[in-house]
Amino acid sequence: MSERENLSRSDHPYRLINRAFHPEFQDNLQSMTVTVAGVRIGSEEKPVIIAGPCAVESREQTLEIARAVKEMGANMLRGGAFKPRTSPYDFQGLGEKGLEILALAREETGLPIISEVLDVRLIELVGQYADVLQIGSRSMRNFPLLVELGKYGKPVLLKRDMAATLHEWLCAAEYIAVEGNMDIILCERGIRTFTIQEYSRFTIDLSVIKGAMEKTFLPIVVDPSHATGNPAMVPAASLAALEFGAHALLIEIIGQHTDRSTIKCDGHQGIRPTVFRQIMIDIEHWWNIKSRE
Amino acid sequence: MSERENLSRSDHPYRLINRAFHPEFQDNLQSMTVTVAGVRIGSEEKPVIIAGPCAVESREQTLEIARAVKEMGANMLRGGAFKPRTSPYDFQGLGEKGLEILALAREETGLPIISEVLDVRLIELVGQYADVLQIGSRSMRNFPLLVELGKYGKPVLLKRDMAATLHEWLCAAEYIAVEGNMDIILCERGIRTFTIQEYSRFTIDLSVIKGAMEKTFLPIVVDPSHATGNPAMVPAASLAALEFGAHALLIEIIGQHTDRSTIKCDGHQGIRPTVFRQIMIDIEHWWNIKSRE
Amino acid sequence: MSERENLSRSDHPYRLINRAFHPEFQDNLQSMTVTVAGVRIGSEEKPVIIAGPCAVESREQTLEIARAVKEMGANMLRGGAFKPRTSPYDFQGLGEKGLEILALAREETGLPIISEVLDVRLIELVGQYADVLQIGSRSMRNFPLLVELGKYGKPVLLKRDMAATLHEWLCAAEYIAVEGNMDIILCERGIRTFTIQEYSRFTIDLSVIKGAMEKTFLPIVVDPSHATGNPAMVPAASLAALEFGAHALLIEIIGQHTDRSTIKCDGHQGIRPTVFRQIMIDIEHWWNIKSRE
Amino acid sequence: MSERENLSRSDHPYRLINRAFHPEFQDNLQSMTVTVAGVRIGSEEKPVIIAGPCAVESREQTLEIARAVKEMGANMLRGGAFKPRTSPYDFQGLGEKGLEILALAREETGLPIISEVLDVRLIELVGQYADVLQIGSRSMRNFPLLVELGKYGKPVLLKRDMAATLHEWLCAAEYIAVEGNMDIILCERGIRTFTIQEYSRFTIDLSVIKGAMEKTFLPIVVDPSHATGNPAMVPAASLAALEFGAHALLIEIIGQHTDRSTIKCDGHQGIRPTVFRQIMIDIEHWWNIKSRE
Repeated sequence: MSERENLSRSDHPYRLINRAFHPEFQDNLQSMTVTVAGVRIGSEEKPVIIAGPCAVESREQTLEIARAVKEMGANMLRGGAFKPRTSPYDFQGLGEKGLEILALAREETGLPIISEVLDVRLIELVGQYADVLQIGSRSMRNFPLLVELGKYGKPVLLKRDMAATLHEWLCAAEYIAVEGNMDIILCERGIRTFTIQEYSRFTIDLSVIKGAMEKTFLPIVVDPSHATGNPAMVPAASLAALEFGAHALLIEIIGQHTDRSTIKCDGHQGIRPTVFRQIMIDIEHWWNIKSRE
Repeated sequence: MSERENLSRSDHPYRLINRAFHPEFQDNLQSMTVTVAGVRIGSEEKPVIIAGPCAVESREQTLEIARAVKEMGANMLRGGAFKPRTSPYDFQGLGEKGLEILALAREETGLPIISEVLDVRLIELVGQYADVLQIGSRSMRNFPLLVELGKYGKPVLLKRDMAATLHEWLCAAEYIAVEGNMDIILCERGIRTFTIQEYSRFTIDLSVIKGAMEKTFLPIVVDPSHATGNPAMVPAASLAALEFGAHALLIEIIGQHTDRSTIKCDGHQGIRPTVFRQIMIDIEHWWNIKSRE
Repeated sequence: MSERENLSRSDHPYRLINRAFHPEFQDNLQSMTVTVAGVRIGSEEKPVIIAGPCAVESREQTLEIARAVKEMGANMLRGGAFKPRTSPYDFQGLGEKGLEILALAREETGLPIISEVLDVRLIELVGQYADVLQIGSRSMRNFPLLVELGKYGKPVLLKRDMAATLHEWLCAAEYIAVEGNMDIILCERGIRTFTIQEYSRFTIDLSVIKGAMEKTFLPIVVDPSHATGNPAMVPAASLAALEFGAHALLIEIIGQHTDRSTIKCDGHQGIRPTVFRQIMIDIEHWWNIKSRE
Repeated sequence: MSERENLSRSDHPYRLINRAFHPEFQDNLQSMTVTVAGVRIGSEEKPVIIAGPCAVESREQTLEIARAVKEMGANMLRGGAFKPRTSPYDFQGLGEKGLEILALAREETGLPIISEVLDVRLIELVGQYADVLQIGSRSMRNFPLLVELGKYGKPVLLKRDMAATLHEWLCAAEYIAVEGNMDIILCERGIRTFTIQEYSRFTIDLSVIKGAMEKTFLPIVVDPSHATGNPAMVPAASLAALEFGAHALLIEIIGQHTDRSTIKCDGHQGIRPTVFRQIMIDIEHWWNIKSRE
């Protein structure tokens, strides 16, 4: 690694997003701010909370969750209309109908929307509805998608591949930046380790937050839901991510009374609105102390 | 895992490629055969050797290597025209010009061609030239690409993602199969482990060959070049893969006198034709003994 | 794993420390309390802070650090007299002299002492000085040592091996319990992953805290110093561990003005007393909110 | 790593076993030879085959296996009398009685014996019986044991810890060497990766053989039984290890008609004598070709 670090700007594999080449971001704790419909993600700001269902499954489900998280203080709504699923027989999302439901939810709640795009041919479609386009973990190495989202220009949330080094993740961000789009938000979502089949499908890698901050000025989000895969760990993981300096959280929510077994996507890992409410209270306390320091 | 294994055919996440549901493949050592321009990859056959440059860089380079490997007994030519690269500033391949060069090499040597496609919009183009379409490690989770290659119908070589479980890899193959394309060849290319920065960028996972054979009847290739990242290990890894039952090898070759530092893609890991010749001799000895048993 | 979980008490590989077989610990958040010279480690209690130098290097160094952490509110003093080092040429600790220095520090500050024992022949010696005997990560699988510490009876802090599954870690604790010693404190200290050579030598595994709490009622400590290997991450990792439910922290401290390069053991990872003071303040704030809930 | 590699001999963390400082081992393929009761392990020699039961369970079992492997051409007998086991309730070995049985087997077959020692207090006892003292994977970081075996002087087989870097493994060997014992044989036995619960408990790391050969001149053994944990993979893994340059193999054998479920230690992974016979035939073929080259 050390060799690469001594490279000059013109030779560096990620130069546009590299803190070392941006004198305006000398301080490691300072990040760029990405603004989405008035919501500012980045340093000095209060952490942004993005919440919503894993997948949009119905109008009722999405609106119920959107209203709940809005009322509890969330800043943005997440929801998948096109879902990358391990098996072809799994629910793949409602497609455009899902995007329409998200737009309805935005209209009602005022929350900007983040939704995943996993096919270069669907950027325009998703881009018509979503305020932030999400590149899922499984697409971090889909370079044509990165390039097209760089050209498209809307803010991008770039999830880390489950086995990506920090170097590879930052190079993926550079693919977007080099096309002229600097509105990039990084998202840590857990790495693959030997714990895979025991108590945690992935291992939440909090150290990468500080590791990334040393190398880049892009803001960083943590997804405690995928990173732990366990609703009982989401509150702790949320606060832990903030302690490490995360600028935002991306949290999966399920209906307050929904039977987990009826949920079509990752039903085991979402938290209920009452749990989310408590996280928001804890964050409020945490922020009050933090902002006084 | 065990729960999944007890699922009936109609519920199984990978059912079309699952050995358990195919009485004609009762024997774990028996695989389906994929035929490419007369070259048969699969069980009972002599291992198929696919060799060629990492990336097509020029007509001279590609033809020199193609002639050499043909003369030494290779069965198929590999070469990338579109390359997925970690950094956007790395050489991304010659594109269609690279495919034209590959076609020339096929014309001259008679070797069928395998080349990577990493963008759904380029399937038609790559498909006009290549006999086998390769899905790279970084695209294994690009589900739209899997679906489109399933529809396209030409044989597909599906590399394993560097952090994919066997289950995830087989589900990726099912995405192709469910669209009607059963001409799928699996390819192991090394997994990401803690050895990453010491003596081996990836760890060659030979056990997955036998693991995969228990679950599926699809033929399996090993790429000893990426799996070890070290030309000094390629001969050993090639024979080792055959010992574990691999049906084919995918080997990167560089010019006999080419300066490694001038190669634009993975110049550190290709082997020279003279080394390839020795591997072919060793395989010949190995096969003579094996086929007598 | 699931098979093992259905085992009855008499067949379970870790039965004495297993929450499932102890009706008095029905609640997953409730742990046993281990008391060390009046300091209570375990559930319902305010987190216990164990701080001190990696290795005892001199009387001055140890007393300076001991006084500082005592004054800032630490509950226990850590310090190694016998050090397990990767290379035989590395500083191996002061031995009994180091223990004597620790005893002096206890006398002066009143802080109980925790020190590592890595040789069955030295249990008596270390046990004469230390209030808690630490089994280092590298000794978690040293079964004779576990057995002897079980027999010895003093409280034991059992660090997790860097590649231990939760199952293996709990079985190691059972080795101690089966000899009649239930005063066992588990300690997470980071796992080995592919991040090894980039921004973090180990990955702090916070999920294992909750994972362990489901399986056992033993209290759990986190060592943020080894788990992150980076003093800049220790404050965040400390609070993050408490969010996940850790009952105590084990933090490495260096002298306020000591040149890191002169420190003989892990000089790169300790934090200075001023940083420790801020952590203690943050924990105080955190506890005030937590204990009100 | 690179910094360490530029260190001079007097600063290097493993200097006695380092190829770079031994002009007599300039060639990377050349190793030192360790001689055990006339059996020579190391370069230029025909691979040495060490076979036997995981644990000595009875006189009959051990003698049956010893006779079988002797008759089929094994060079050395392995068998554990003291077993490191995950759970304290697992069979821990027959102790001295096991050693006596091994001595009987040696007397009858003439095969030298290798047996594990996992407690510094038992070196003398095991050393009275065994020709080679094995340091198990779980003891690689037991530095007092390494030191005492260095002083004891009998040949040592040093298994790699399941998460050890090559650097850590070689430093462990240096602990033995620095005490004056250069009769050290390294043994790769599989590393811990994310494949843990699927098709392979460990991942056999063949690249480390060549990686180690670059750094040290010590001979290297591979244990295909633990490395794959699957008897169906042992024949392939044995030959694969030889392709990578292993100087010896350490193979677990079970009785020809023994019910696997009745075996007290690792009964799932041993191979039967008939399978061993075929491996020996395959090795013979392989060696005939290799030694002609």
